[in-house]
Amino acid sequence: MVVNVEEAVAVLARTPQGLRALLEGVGDPWLDAREGENTFSPRDVMGHLITGEETDWIPRLRIILEHGETRPFTPFDRFAFKDRYGARPMAELLDTFAQLRRQNLAALEEVRLSPADLERPGRHPELGAVTLGQLLATWAAHDLGHVSQIVRVMAKRYTADVGPWRAYLRILA
Amino acid sequence: MVVNVEEAVAVLARTPQGLRALLEGVGDPWLDAREGENTFSPRDVMGHLITGEETDWIPRLRIILEHGETRPFTPFDRFAFKDRYGARPMAELLDTFAQLRRQNLAALEEVRLSPADLERPGRHPELGAVTLGQLLATWAAHDLGHVSQIVRVMAKRYTADVGPWRAYLRILA
Repeated sequence: MVVNVEEAVAVLARTPQGLRALLEGVGDPWLDAREGENTFSPRDVMGHLITGEETDWIPRLRIILEHGETRPFTPFDRFAFKDRYGARPMAELLDTFAQLRRQNLAALEEVRLSPADLERPGRHPELGAVTLGQLLATWAAHDLGHVSQIVRVMAKRYTADVGPWRAYLRILA
Repeated sequence: MVVNVEEAVAVLARTPQGLRALLEGVGDPWLDAREGENTFSPRDVMGHLITGEETDWIPRLRIILEHGETRPFTPFDRFAFKDRYGARPMAELLDTFAQLRRQNLAALEEVRLSPADLERPGRHPELGAVTLGQLLATWAAHDLGHVSQIVRVMAKRYTADVGPWRAYLRILA
């Protein structure tokens, strides 16, 4: 296992500022772009990341610490953000995400995980047996995946416009 | 054609700060990660983006404006950065990229492109006939593609560590 708390936190702590720098003020045509029906726009991704902070990562970490594998995680609703955050201005979404992430990283620090803790078992309602270390690695990889999704969705606005250069742009494949 | 100068610049102007927020201080294990031999680490991508600012985008725009399709672009060496920038500290790479990007966006503003200018023809040494609008769209999509590459390369450090969650993480596919 490569994952450790310090390195994962190095990524997790930077995502809010990275997204703010890329998205704040960039304009609605970029923020509302999507790859097709029932796919996430950059604005949707922000709502999804916020609900993850509210209901997924730290709550699941606490379930593992308190109940181990005896209590499965509460299922995460990937679309729960639509009602709560679908219509909020981007600046507010960026603020909310940054604030929740700060709180959650403080909560993570507070439990002072040891390397041995990363082996502690939990139970995912669909995936079955998991560990706390896998949850931590997934939290960080999930951030990076959604940054990747955001910039991919944005880039695709120009799929036709790049003309023959498309052959060189893997992101438009 | 969707591309226009204002929207493309909205993306191009944000990339340096976005990369700084994601990468500055994140640590060498993340910055030196790579997907395999002869692939770019996040550090390599910064060098590649810098050489693009130096020798690709604005120089090609000027060739189109001054020579149209009569003079093919100078071929771009995607690996030229290795000698010049391979060993520089990340903070310096981020500064250099930000400074060159600022200068190049000032140069772009100075030529005051009209919508009609975006149709002006140029000649790519490999791809053949292109337009100034396609060059501009490609500049922006190229930024987004390399942001995507950076976070993908980083995420892949955790491919094994996420365990069964891999099934949910498209970035690790």
